[in-house]
Amino acid sequence: MTDYGRFWSQRAKDLPKNPFVELLPLMKDPSAKVLCQGVPPDTTFPMQSIALTLVDGTSVTLTSEETRLAQRYPPFAWGPLREWLLKHIKQIHCPPVGLDWDVAIAAGSMSSVDLVCAAFIDRGDIVLIESFSFTASLDAFRSYGARLEPIPLDNEGMLPDALEAACLRLQANGQRAKFLYTIPVGQNPTGSTLSAERYDRIYQIARRFDLLIIEDDAYFYQQHRVRKLNAESDSGHAVKRQKLTSQDFDSTLPGLQLGISFLRLDTDGRVLRLDSFSKCLAPGFRLGWVSGARPLVAKYNALAYASSQNGCSLSMMLLGKMLETWGDEGLERHFLKLQSQLRDRCNALVKAAEDHLGELATWQRPEAGMFLWVEMKKAPRDREHLLQEMRNNGIAVLPGESCLSAPTSEQSCRYLRLSFVLPDEHYPEAMKRLATIMSCM
Amino acid sequence: MTDYGRFWSQRAKDLPKNPFVELLPLMKDPSAKVLCQGVPPDTTFPMQSIALTLVDGTSVTLTSEETRLAQRYPPFAWGPLREWLLKHIKQIHCPPVGLDWDVAIAAGSMSSVDLVCAAFIDRGDIVLIESFSFTASLDAFRSYGARLEPIPLDNEGMLPDALEAACLRLQANGQRAKFLYTIPVGQNPTGSTLSAERYDRIYQIARRFDLLIIEDDAYFYQQHRVRKLNAESDSGHAVKRQKLTSQDFDSTLPGLQLGISFLRLDTDGRVLRLDSFSKCLAPGFRLGWVSGARPLVAKYNALAYASSQNGCSLSMMLLGKMLETWGDEGLERHFLKLQSQLRDRCNALVKAAEDHLGELATWQRPEAGMFLWVEMKKAPRDREHLLQEMRNNGIAVLPGESCLSAPTSEQSCRYLRLSFVLPDEHYPEAMKRLATIMSCM
Repeated sequence: MTDYGRFWSQRAKDLPKNPFVELLPLMKDPSAKVLCQGVPPDTTFPMQSIALTLVDGTSVTLTSEETRLAQRYPPFAWGPLREWLLKHIKQIHCPPVGLDWDVAIAAGSMSSVDLVCAAFIDRGDIVLIESFSFTASLDAFRSYGARLEPIPLDNEGMLPDALEAACLRLQANGQRAKFLYTIPVGQNPTGSTLSAERYDRIYQIARRFDLLIIEDDAYFYQQHRVRKLNAESDSGHAVKRQKLTSQDFDSTLPGLQLGISFLRLDTDGRVLRLDSFSKCLAPGFRLGWVSGARPLVAKYNALAYASSQNGCSLSMMLLGKMLETWGDEGLERHFLKLQSQLRDRCNALVKAAEDHLGELATWQRPEAGMFLWVEMKKAPRDREHLLQEMRNNGIAVLPGESCLSAPTSEQSCRYLRLSFVLPDEHYPEAMKRLATIMSCM
Repeated sequence: MTDYGRFWSQRAKDLPKNPFVELLPLMKDPSAKVLCQGVPPDTTFPMQSIALTLVDGTSVTLTSEETRLAQRYPPFAWGPLREWLLKHIKQIHCPPVGLDWDVAIAAGSMSSVDLVCAAFIDRGDIVLIESFSFTASLDAFRSYGARLEPIPLDNEGMLPDALEAACLRLQANGQRAKFLYTIPVGQNPTGSTLSAERYDRIYQIARRFDLLIIEDDAYFYQQHRVRKLNAESDSGHAVKRQKLTSQDFDSTLPGLQLGISFLRLDTDGRVLRLDSFSKCLAPGFRLGWVSGARPLVAKYNALAYASSQNGCSLSMMLLGKMLETWGDEGLERHFLKLQSQLRDRCNALVKAAEDHLGELATWQRPEAGMFLWVEMKKAPRDREHLLQEMRNNGIAVLPGESCLSAPTSEQSCRYLRLSFVLPDEHYPEAMKRLATIMSCM
C-alpha cells in the first residue's frame, strides 16, 4: 500500500485535530447532556418545510425533520446523500476489493481542487498536468506555488510515453512530482477522452514513480459519443486505434454505462477522485464528492472542517431526497437527456464550424464534455488583440491562452475554447463572427 | 488610506486574474454570442420551482426563472442577496462616508476565515488574537503557519493596553503583525462583548501600528442583554464601568438596534468584517458575508473564484427571497425570538450553575452569543482525564484547552466552554453531572 507521509503539505501536517471528533460519540448518545455545540436553538430555525417540483413532474418534499437537518451543520445533514454516494460509487466504479475506500461530500469541485492543493502542495512542489488544462485549477495550483510539468495529450488523452519521460527527467534531476492531476473524460479544454489502454499504462507509471493521481472527472457523466468495443477490450471508453471514424462510434448514448476510471484500477490507494454535481445536475447546488483511499479522504475532511465544511446542508438534503426519489431509473433518464442534448449541440457546433471555419482552423470532435478546442491557422498578435476582435464582433469564447499549463509566446494565442451549451440555432451566426475574426488576424 | 501591498500573502499575489472578469461585459451583452461558459444547458437543470414554508407561516416561492438562477453558478444567483446586504450593512453599520466599501457573499464564516488566511498569511506571519478564541479559527491560523500573539481579554473584551504593549514588543524586535483577529461580540469562547470605548482605542492602535482588523462578528445578532447607555456615550454596546450589575442592563432586547462595529469606525479601510447567517438564521445555508474596503473585498472574491466560489446559489436565492419577503419587520421579529430564547436559556444555565457549581468554579454571565466560559477551581490532570470523566458522567462540553491561543501546561485544562442552546430543563441535571466531575478532580 501507499505510504502517504511524503505527500502531505506542511499545512496538512500542521492542522490540529478537530476537537469535535472525540466528542462525537458523546454527542450522539441520547442519554448525554450535550453542551458543546455552537448552533442556535433548533426552535429558532426559520424553515418548516421545503417542496421541490422537478421539470420531469416529480415532487420532492422535505418533512419538518428533514428540513430541520437541512438547517443544521453539514455533519448532521449529509447522511442520506453520503449513503447514496457509497452505493453509486460501488456500482459505477467497482473499486478493487482490497481497497479501503471512503467518500466525502465536497462544496463543489473547485473547492475540492482547493483542498487538494491544501493537502499536498508546498511552494515549489511539482505537479504533473495535461499541457492544456482547466483554467481555475491551473490558477489554484499556481497560487499555491506549484511548479507545473506539462504532459502533452492528443484526442485519446494524455500520452503515457510523455508522462514516463517527464518522470524520468525529474528523476535524473533528483526530483519527484507529488501528483498527477488529470481530467480524463471530456477534458477541459481539449475535449479529449482517455482511452482504456492509457488508463492502465498511466496507473502503472504512477506506481513506478510513486505518484498520487488526482482524477478530476467533472465531465464523466457528460459522455455523448460512445466508442464501440472490440473483442480485445471490454472494460472502457475506447479501443486503441490509429484514427477513429464515425464507424467506430455507437449510435446509443451511455446513460449510466460510463466505463473505466482510475478509481477502478486503484489497488494501491493512490487515487483521489473528484466528482461534481455541477456538470451533471446543476452548478447551483455547489456540491461534489471526493472518493478514494480512506487516509486521503480523511485528510480531505480534516481540511474541510477548517474551510468549506463540505458544502451546504440545504443542498445536501434536497439533492439526497431528489436522488432517492428518482432512483437509478430517474437518474439514468436525466443523464440520457443531458447526453443527448450535448450530443446534438456538439453536432450543431461542429457542423457550423465546418461550414465557416474550414479553411481557418482545425479541431477534433469531442466524445464527452462541453468544449470544442480550436486551433487557428493564424494566431492573433496577442490576447488583447483577440479580446478586442471579440468585442468588435459580438462573440465571447475563452482565449486558449488561459488553459496553457506552460504558456509560451509562440503558441499561447492560437487556441480557442468554444462551448456548445447554447441551443443549436446560435452556432451558424457565432461561427460566421468567428470566421470574420480569424480572417483578419 | 491604507496601502495594502505589505498585507497580501504570496498566494494572493500569485493568483492569476480570473479570465472571466474581462469576458463578463460580453457575456452580459444580449446581442453577443456567448460560447465561453462551461455550464450544462439550462434546459437540463432538474428543478422547476421551489416552495418554502416558514415556521412563522410565511410562504416563499421561487418562480421558474428564480429557480433557474438558483441552479446556475453563484455570480448569476447572488444578485438579490447582495442587494439586500448592501442596504442592510448601510443601515446597521453606517460605514464612514469616505470609505469606498463593498460586500461579498461567503460560503459560511469558516470559509471566510480560510480565505482571510489565504489572502494574508505566509508561514511565520504574526497574527494578534484574543488569548482565548474560536477553535476552528485557531486551527486554520496554525495550519497556515501563523505565529499567534495572544492578547488578554476580560468581560469587556480585549484589553487595549495589552494590545498596545504587544505591538510595542513586536516593534522593539523589528516585527509587525499582519492583522488583529477579534470576535468583539459574544466572544467565542469567553462570551465577552467589547465596550464602545475599547472599539475606539483598538482602532487607534491599529492605525498607529498599521494593522488590518479582521472583525469576526458571528454573534453580533445574538445580543441578548443590553447595557444601558449613559449621557456620555450613545453609540455603542456599553458604557465603561468598573463592575456591571443587573441595574446596568436594560430589560428590552436589541432586535435590530445592535450598536457599534469596527466597520463603522473604518475611515482608513483597514477592517474586513466577517458576518454569518449560521448563528442568526441557520448554519445549513452555509452562507455569510464579508464587508469592508473595496480592495480587501476584491481580493476575497479573487480567492473565492479558485476555491469556495462564494457559496451555494440555491441558498443565496432562497435566503434572498426569504429576506425580501420578511422585510425589516419580519427580520427583527426573528431576531427578537432568537435573542429572547438565548437570554432565557442563558439565564437557565447560569441559575443551574449557581445552584451546583458555586463552590467549584467561576464565570461571568455573557451579554451575547451562546457560550458560558467556566474556570474550574481545580484543574483536571490532563485533557484525557477530563474527557474520561465526561464519558463516565454522560456530559459533553468543550475542553477549554481547544480555545487557547497559546496553550501553556499550567492553565490549559482549567477552562470549559458550555453552550446554552438546549431547552431550559436540561441544565440542572447537566450542572449536577459537571459538579460530580469537578468534585473528583
